[in-house]
Amino acid sequence: MNEVRTPVALFGASGYTGREAVRLLAAHPAFRLAAAFGGPGRAGVPLSTLHPSLRGTTDLRCEAPGAAGETGTVGVALRDRGIGHALLATPEATSIDLAPALLEQGLRVVDLSGAFRLRHAAAYAEWYGGDHGAPRLLGRAAYGLPEWAGDRLRRADLVANPGCYPTAALLALLPLRRADLIDPAVPIVIHAISGASGAGRRLRDDLLFCEVEGSIRPYGAPRHRHLGEITEQCGPDPEIEIQFIPHLAPIERGLLCSIALRLRPGHGSSALAEAYSGAYDAAPFVRLLGDGLLPSTAEVRGTNVCAIGWALSPGSRQASIFSAIDNLVKGASGQAIQNLNLMTGRPETEGLAR
Amino acid sequence: MNEVRTPVALFGASGYTGREAVRLLAAHPAFRLAAAFGGPGRAGVPLSTLHPSLRGTTDLRCEAPGAAGETGTVGVALRDRGIGHALLATPEATSIDLAPALLEQGLRVVDLSGAFRLRHAAAYAEWYGGDHGAPRLLGRAAYGLPEWAGDRLRRADLVANPGCYPTAALLALLPLRRADLIDPAVPIVIHAISGASGAGRRLRDDLLFCEVEGSIRPYGAPRHRHLGEITEQCGPDPEIEIQFIPHLAPIERGLLCSIALRLRPGHGSSALAEAYSGAYDAAPFVRLLGDGLLPSTAEVRGTNVCAIGWALSPGSRQASIFSAIDNLVKGASGQAIQNLNLMTGRPETEGLAR
Amino acid sequence: MNEVRTPVALFGASGYTGREAVRLLAAHPAFRLAAAFGGPGRAGVPLSTLHPSLRGTTDLRCEAPGAAGETGTVGVALRDRGIGHALLATPEATSIDLAPALLEQGLRVVDLSGAFRLRHAAAYAEWYGGDHGAPRLLGRAAYGLPEWAGDRLRRADLVANPGCYPTAALLALLPLRRADLIDPAVPIVIHAISGASGAGRRLRDDLLFCEVEGSIRPYGAPRHRHLGEITEQCGPDPEIEIQFIPHLAPIERGLLCSIALRLRPGHGSSALAEAYSGAYDAAPFVRLLGDGLLPSTAEVRGTNVCAIGWALSPGSRQASIFSAIDNLVKGASGQAIQNLNLMTGRPETEGLAR
Amino acid sequence: MNEVRTPVALFGASGYTGREAVRLLAAHPAFRLAAAFGGPGRAGVPLSTLHPSLRGTTDLRCEAPGAAGETGTVGVALRDRGIGHALLATPEATSIDLAPALLEQGLRVVDLSGAFRLRHAAAYAEWYGGDHGAPRLLGRAAYGLPEWAGDRLRRADLVANPGCYPTAALLALLPLRRADLIDPAVPIVIHAISGASGAGRRLRDDLLFCEVEGSIRPYGAPRHRHLGEITEQCGPDPEIEIQFIPHLAPIERGLLCSIALRLRPGHGSSALAEAYSGAYDAAPFVRLLGDGLLPSTAEVRGTNVCAIGWALSPGSRQASIFSAIDNLVKGASGQAIQNLNLMTGRPETEGLAR
Repeated sequence: MNEVRTPVALFGASGYTGREAVRLLAAHPAFRLAAAFGGPGRAGVPLSTLHPSLRGTTDLRCEAPGAAGETGTVGVALRDRGIGHALLATPEATSIDLAPALLEQGLRVVDLSGAFRLRHAAAYAEWYGGDHGAPRLLGRAAYGLPEWAGDRLRRADLVANPGCYPTAALLALLPLRRADLIDPAVPIVIHAISGASGAGRRLRDDLLFCEVEGSIRPYGAPRHRHLGEITEQCGPDPEIEIQFIPHLAPIERGLLCSIALRLRPGHGSSALAEAYSGAYDAAPFVRLLGDGLLPSTAEVRGTNVCAIGWALSPGSRQASIFSAIDNLVKGASGQAIQNLNLMTGRPETEGLAR
Repeated sequence: MNEVRTPVALFGASGYTGREAVRLLAAHPAFRLAAAFGGPGRAGVPLSTLHPSLRGTTDLRCEAPGAAGETGTVGVALRDRGIGHALLATPEATSIDLAPALLEQGLRVVDLSGAFRLRHAAAYAEWYGGDHGAPRLLGRAAYGLPEWAGDRLRRADLVANPGCYPTAALLALLPLRRADLIDPAVPIVIHAISGASGAGRRLRDDLLFCEVEGSIRPYGAPRHRHLGEITEQCGPDPEIEIQFIPHLAPIERGLLCSIALRLRPGHGSSALAEAYSGAYDAAPFVRLLGDGLLPSTAEVRGTNVCAIGWALSPGSRQASIFSAIDNLVKGASGQAIQNLNLMTGRPETEGLAR
Repeated sequence: MNEVRTPVALFGASGYTGREAVRLLAAHPAFRLAAAFGGPGRAGVPLSTLHPSLRGTTDLRCEAPGAAGETGTVGVALRDRGIGHALLATPEATSIDLAPALLEQGLRVVDLSGAFRLRHAAAYAEWYGGDHGAPRLLGRAAYGLPEWAGDRLRRADLVANPGCYPTAALLALLPLRRADLIDPAVPIVIHAISGASGAGRRLRDDLLFCEVEGSIRPYGAPRHRHLGEITEQCGPDPEIEIQFIPHLAPIERGLLCSIALRLRPGHGSSALAEAYSGAYDAAPFVRLLGDGLLPSTAEVRGTNVCAIGWALSPGSRQASIFSAIDNLVKGASGQAIQNLNLMTGRPETEGLAR
Repeated sequence: MNEVRTPVALFGASGYTGREAVRLLAAHPAFRLAAAFGGPGRAGVPLSTLHPSLRGTTDLRCEAPGAAGETGTVGVALRDRGIGHALLATPEATSIDLAPALLEQGLRVVDLSGAFRLRHAAAYAEWYGGDHGAPRLLGRAAYGLPEWAGDRLRRADLVANPGCYPTAALLALLPLRRADLIDPAVPIVIHAISGASGAGRRLRDDLLFCEVEGSIRPYGAPRHRHLGEITEQCGPDPEIEIQFIPHLAPIERGLLCSIALRLRPGHGSSALAEAYSGAYDAAPFVRLLGDGLLPSTAEVRGTNVCAIGWALSPGSRQASIFSAIDNLVKGASGQAIQNLNLMTGRPETEGLAR
């Protein structure tokens, strides 16, 4: 590939979503990774040392924040190097620190953290705790679920990449909300199961192999952070309650949402099929399996696809909706690339597997 | 251990629940495995060849049906050998064939299949398909969920061992039903995840290692057989709808139910705690974790325990209830031994891990 | 991609190597899958039904042998459709049956089975059992280990794709043999560990998830079929004994060879480094990690790379050599594509991940 | 069980071998866990919080070193509480600190670390680094491989519990050494594969689920610490070189040694069978599978058994020997209990599964 590819900076390269972003950028025809920053103490370390699976993919090393200037001036330094786009695969606090500095220098930013997903500082405080350090950016950020973002991404300079659970949940729910098929008298119950990479590359005792292997465990109920994001995006009908119950399973990557909801009277499988077709027939990364074909996480592994299927009982209006994604791709870095494609007027599917 | 232990016959010794029964009987102070029968073509094969983990545990070989007589006379043969108890870890059709012959000769039977769990032949036809070959036994069978069976097991000569999913679901639901805490206006959503041993030792393409490893997949929705059993045992309030969504996870053993339901107005966590304490304070195999402590399948692995926890949102009556079991122990052979203990007046916990 | 891509026929599309070949051909810029044949009873079945991970990748269905003619005339039928290349991901017997028919019609064939890897019918009889049905093809077949095949592939019309174990073992051993570094007084011990996909998609009890999960087990020692292939390719020094000990591990894909051998006096790590550099500095799919950097199977997953590292004790001539591949890619279908690239004068790396 | 069981103190209760010791002691008819100490910051924490699988097994909390006195006086405190036996599941440095204090107060100690396994301080410095803080204890410690310890354990007050790899390797090798069957002209090559619990419960990046899952990787070659232990115990024939190559596999527990060695001329499978029978016919925890029956780690999971099998090629003197153990049981805490049984004159098998 020639090196007229657009240069991109990546912050948070030492984590799992960071690694996935490196992998995807390396194979992208239109972008190239031009600068990578890792967590504390990573400066100078080759990416392929942090991630052996990147041996042969990249020779880049993590830069010191100093190499590109202090956090306050990192934007200037990148700008001076001709880098106009940045992916932030960083914790919320880091993103809130970095984003203003980058935007000020004219960089366009896709943030993969939860920093800019909610619209109001009060909601941020409720779900993430503490004051938001850059509240004015909340209104400026576009929510980067491309299938539902319309034209906004084309013009956005700050895109909030959705959470992994919200991506799978919203892709399943929004068509039914738009078609007004969901009976608000009954709560929507979202059971979700994720692989361990969803928790990031953190040195936590409960993420050790021996703690995860051979076990299924719920966590985060009843108020996981992603519930706030799902509820906000599912609005504006406040009377539908959403119950969200995430689980950890012994797989590296993959995420499944199994959603129980009640259809309004008179609606059944064909209404579901219509709503989904209407919403996604032109969406390159949504795969509709239809009634009775249930998706597995294996079938979307490594791809940017969300597979959706459903099951209905003959005599009942209770529907089971299933959506499966790879949490590191469609649930994180793949979707970030999809957003970058759309922000820069590239074909939406470029550099992404289906 | 001396050999005055009560002899037990096991049918279906070549499967996973059969293997677990062999393991548990070998370590039981009051019972011993006296005769084992496997599937077709297994006659003469040592149990330790079928199940290498049984090397050192037993020298027994699978008997030919002929060794104990034709199916019709196997009861006579066992009776003549002084064997008065049988465990059937066999498919429904085999159990329906065997049970009458054994009962006729005075043997007491615990059946681990779905053959005798439903009360009426019509329900059996609906959920399992086809006519029931021994419908008169349906009324005679005691449903062997010991925590809710009262005295019935003491006198029963035919015990229907509950399914793995119903065991975990009912132990979580029945206390709330008895205390009338569940709001019937909203369906109960049972989301369940099971290890692969729950499907039995079947040569099915979708149970190969490469198909199960690294993947989460739903199956069986919307009408898995166990829904009929759960609904019947949850009665008699027909207006509460139950939605049951099972999943397969890449673990060998373990089963988790994550149940969403609405409490009646005025009830919350303390009502849940009271209902569970009232039901299970004397139950040796139910472990109440309480509010906010969510069980994993790992913590009950190899034991006959059902661990129960729950989570509630402050402003909501939607509760998340979690119950975890080892599907091969409390969900199958361990519960069968628990039933055998109670049928014979032994201490309920004998030979079972907690 | 435009459809002037060269059409390829695939036999054995229902297995795991077949699936991988479909995946690789779908993304290949110069080849396209034009006809797929599966095992018995697969005719008419969409590939994406056999392999859900192929949903979205291909709409092709398995053809009946009849659709392309009887086995004897399948070559004619393919030829008439303008298909000049075939991959055989079939059992030995099927390959021996198909290859002559295809070659006769001028198709060029890459066979992934063991049918044509050994040079003499006597060796085939010794390691695979029975007479070889097309012994004259044994001399005609080129052994398709591209890094050591020189020009032969460019002209070959029948290429025997190496076995998965021989690929990893030979890539590690041949440079040391060529440089004459191995002391023949001491046997070469090849200890190898493979994921379960190496055994193919067979309905065997020992390949069920519950039998593979959580367990490491040796198998096939002392005379696994691949030992014959390794020994023949390692020749012509008959006095070096090779001991080959394969194991099955609970991973889906990945293969590691850990080889113990003695270096001739006076040689150490730098001689190893030189031998490997000399052999592979221009080889795009061999990654040399060097002394003390040991490869894992994870780092080559999904790629056509063989990663090689080694470790030596200061005072000893015993070396430990490690080579890791993805058994389905470099160990099977990826290498087949690499061979196809070379046979047709395409760039060696086309369509293959590094 | 009545509480006249002998009280035992456990140090290192927060790790994986510590947890296994708690589990085994809880079920032991003659011992009971009377005091547990964890790592830094664990004082007051219930063992069942550290290890959810211990819920229902024990109510004990980790004691502060202060509760039993400073390290120097912990022996006094335990002695005063009538506790005469201690298990140390601690790092080497901690064991070297604790053991003298405990021995001084008359406690009998089984140490599971590498602190006292080697006979000389020089060897300790070579393999573990640094000076040994209590070198006089090296000669006093009995090497606790019960099958080869003769009477020494009965009288020992300090037992060095063997490493997990040495346990499996030595049980396979020592009978052949005693019978002088091994040709010293050819090195013994020990390839070993272990589950992740063998590395302990350490917050290391390479032990996270996502790093271990789906991967096989060698490590530690060419000079893993256990090589020193194996070599010393295999003596006294210095001219046989031993090459030791350990690997990490994605299983929680289980360890397999696959050993390649050359038999002296004139010896074959029957000599092996004789040597093993002679050594182990009375050994309750060694299971001899014989020629051609290869052990898996699954079949010894949870037990204190070492299963041994072998394979020989007709025309060769190169033998493949396989030994499988559960690294947490026979490779650590189970063997410690076996040693405790023998030290106190209890039946060797008490409280241990076969």
